[in-house]
Amino acid sequence: MSSRQVPDGATLAFRRMWQDLEPLGLDATTGGYRRYAWTRTDHDLREWFAGECAARGLDLTTDRMGNQWAWWGDPDAAAAAGTPGVVVGSHLDSVPDGGAFDGPLGVVSALAAVDALRAKGFRPDRPIGVVNFGDEEGSRFGVACAGSRVITGAMSADRARGLKDLDGVTMAEAIELSGGDPRHLGRDDETLARVGTFVELHVEQGRALDLLDRPVGVGSDIWPHGRWRIDVPGEANHAGTTALDDREDAMLGLAAAIISARRSAEEHGCLATIGKVEVVPGGVNAVASCATAWLDARGTDAHAVRRVVADVRDVVADFDALVTEESWTPTTDFDPLLVRRLSTLLGGIPVIGTGAGHDAGILANAGVRTAMLFVRNPTGVSHSPDEWAAADDCLSGVAALADVVTDLAGPTAA
Amino acid sequence: MSSRQVPDGATLAFRRMWQDLEPLGLDATTGGYRRYAWTRTDHDLREWFAGECAARGLDLTTDRMGNQWAWWGDPDAAAAAGTPGVVVGSHLDSVPDGGAFDGPLGVVSALAAVDALRAKGFRPDRPIGVVNFGDEEGSRFGVACAGSRVITGAMSADRARGLKDLDGVTMAEAIELSGGDPRHLGRDDETLARVGTFVELHVEQGRALDLLDRPVGVGSDIWPHGRWRIDVPGEANHAGTTALDDREDAMLGLAAAIISARRSAEEHGCLATIGKVEVVPGGVNAVASCATAWLDARGTDAHAVRRVVADVRDVVADFDALVTEESWTPTTDFDPLLVRRLSTLLGGIPVIGTGAGHDAGILANAGVRTAMLFVRNPTGVSHSPDEWAAADDCLSGVAALADVVTDLAGPTAA
Repeated sequence: MSSRQVPDGATLAFRRMWQDLEPLGLDATTGGYRRYAWTRTDHDLREWFAGECAARGLDLTTDRMGNQWAWWGDPDAAAAAGTPGVVVGSHLDSVPDGGAFDGPLGVVSALAAVDALRAKGFRPDRPIGVVNFGDEEGSRFGVACAGSRVITGAMSADRARGLKDLDGVTMAEAIELSGGDPRHLGRDDETLARVGTFVELHVEQGRALDLLDRPVGVGSDIWPHGRWRIDVPGEANHAGTTALDDREDAMLGLAAAIISARRSAEEHGCLATIGKVEVVPGGVNAVASCATAWLDARGTDAHAVRRVVADVRDVVADFDALVTEESWTPTTDFDPLLVRRLSTLLGGIPVIGTGAGHDAGILANAGVRTAMLFVRNPTGVSHSPDEWAAADDCLSGVAALADVVTDLAGPTAA
Repeated sequence: MSSRQVPDGATLAFRRMWQDLEPLGLDATTGGYRRYAWTRTDHDLREWFAGECAARGLDLTTDRMGNQWAWWGDPDAAAAAGTPGVVVGSHLDSVPDGGAFDGPLGVVSALAAVDALRAKGFRPDRPIGVVNFGDEEGSRFGVACAGSRVITGAMSADRARGLKDLDGVTMAEAIELSGGDPRHLGRDDETLARVGTFVELHVEQGRALDLLDRPVGVGSDIWPHGRWRIDVPGEANHAGTTALDDREDAMLGLAAAIISARRSAEEHGCLATIGKVEVVPGGVNAVASCATAWLDARGTDAHAVRRVVADVRDVVADFDALVTEESWTPTTDFDPLLVRRLSTLLGGIPVIGTGAGHDAGILANAGVRTAMLFVRNPTGVSHSPDEWAAADDCLSGVAALADVVTDLAGPTAA
């Protein structure tokens, strides 16, 4: 196989897998995907993954968080011998009304890469793993990358078990209802010991590759990013009878937060977004007694991001609002030697940063040798039904991933 | 009985009824009431009302919308004789996390007034009715005064049946699930023919009586008021990767709408409120593809209210937002002769307007001779757990209502 081509069989398998996944969790009204952790749709996706792995003769295991790992070769023997495996893969869950590519492209490409390696008669020196991480988007319980956070110890089992969805169902209850055992949750060193290298392929969520006119790139780092909760207090009252001067209307603080986040992000060259809001009591004829907004802020420079949050905090202080940091992740650098090696191996492809969090970032922070591959997204749109990548670019991604695995798991691998 | 005193028996009954109602639909977390139409709590409230009416020997009927009417005397014979009845009452449902007084005070006072009339041996010339209107607040299906709107024909049965709650349950389904028959909905002339006069007692939702230092007042009119839906479009995108310049963020239009509504209301001397918002997709890391806000605007002058809406429309036009009028109610005048008669009867008590809609307004617009009594609200707070009126003022309301019924249903009534 040439390094830029995928054998016909692997191409056909890629297309068939893509078609298989298309209807799962698709909302007919919005045209977007609603693939949330530990739901019926999630169950169907996991069954699909298990079936694909079985069809390829891969050995499927689940870790203490229920993430699915499928192995070609014996990962425990290799770990014991000091030559742990090469893992590729991503996640299958989605944001609310998300697109088809964010997550599934990495899983399908990993399976197709296995097909491509098999077709060319590749015999790995190290075990090759394909992973499907659970609950990457955090759509249901609010914490992104829950699957990788728990097994690396970045989130404690107790915190995970107690997270609640909008219906008040805890993650522990959701896991139990889906047939799992929430008592097993926790850091999983046995699983991590099997992972010598992790390479996650993902659709790009910006237009860097498109502007460079290149189908595939290597990820260098994940920007520092965080989430803050802004609680603006007010006083519940009747909208039709309460004089304006007698009001404490929480919505005014909300509006100020939205505008200041945008202005300050422009000023400091960062990204800041308020995309989720809760208003209490939420009646058309009721002055709001509380408005809660979530601020997402990111950028290449952690100090600039911090300045944006401080600006918003200053503005909403006039409304007696409380700003609480819910998460903060400093810059995550992927392994610099690995990044350079992959870029060179793939013909000097571009090296780009990203503002989005990924399981790859969690594993990198846990000390795993990690990198990412990105596939061109011509509009840059993601987390939307309009998210898209061209089929040829996706197949270039499969070919790149197969080359990477050949390099890392092959006879000459370091 | 003196005109300003309530007999001991009626006072005791008032207090017992108040205690009976206290736990029904109370949310332990917020301390507010969640009494929504055609729910289990609504069922319990209706059963309670039926029990109180049975204990007083009143004849209970329901109309085509399920509103409960309890009669002392034969309303059909009286209607046929050209001397239709005198009806008092209000509603028992609440806004989300509402207070204890808005609605129930009118129902409990009506029943206590019957007790007071019985205690003094009053024998009515006209039948006396006590009504419990259903779904006054519109908390579940979004249309206020649904009970009175349907029986007066102000809202068609088809529109009512098709209204949906947040779970997508239609009003028709909700009525059917609660044991009713949605096919019966419609204008109910038989019921309306029984109502010669309707007087609704209500806690004041402002501080006019408090500023005048008077416990009870008569309502003169309901301000013109309306609701508008504002749909701000955007483009769903990833909050962590989409450049600010590439965004169409619906939240910016929402913020502009909130601020312009307040500013314009101040300028034109009206009330304008945005208290309900829906954001799609509503993820912390998703740029909003749509933000919908509901604008409630009212004031003494219809032209000024219209100007506020036009100002908001101009501002959100910059965000390509669509503004749709969901309802508009012109000034509703209560019967001027009746208003003067009640004020004089009750010793020259104040005559005040109100910005809130009521079933009394719907009946007035349908041609029923209608007035309202208001009981002092020392803070003016309503639609909130903090809504409150002093027990002595409430009993003054009962005494006033008993005097009104004595006057309107007694031997000398015109």
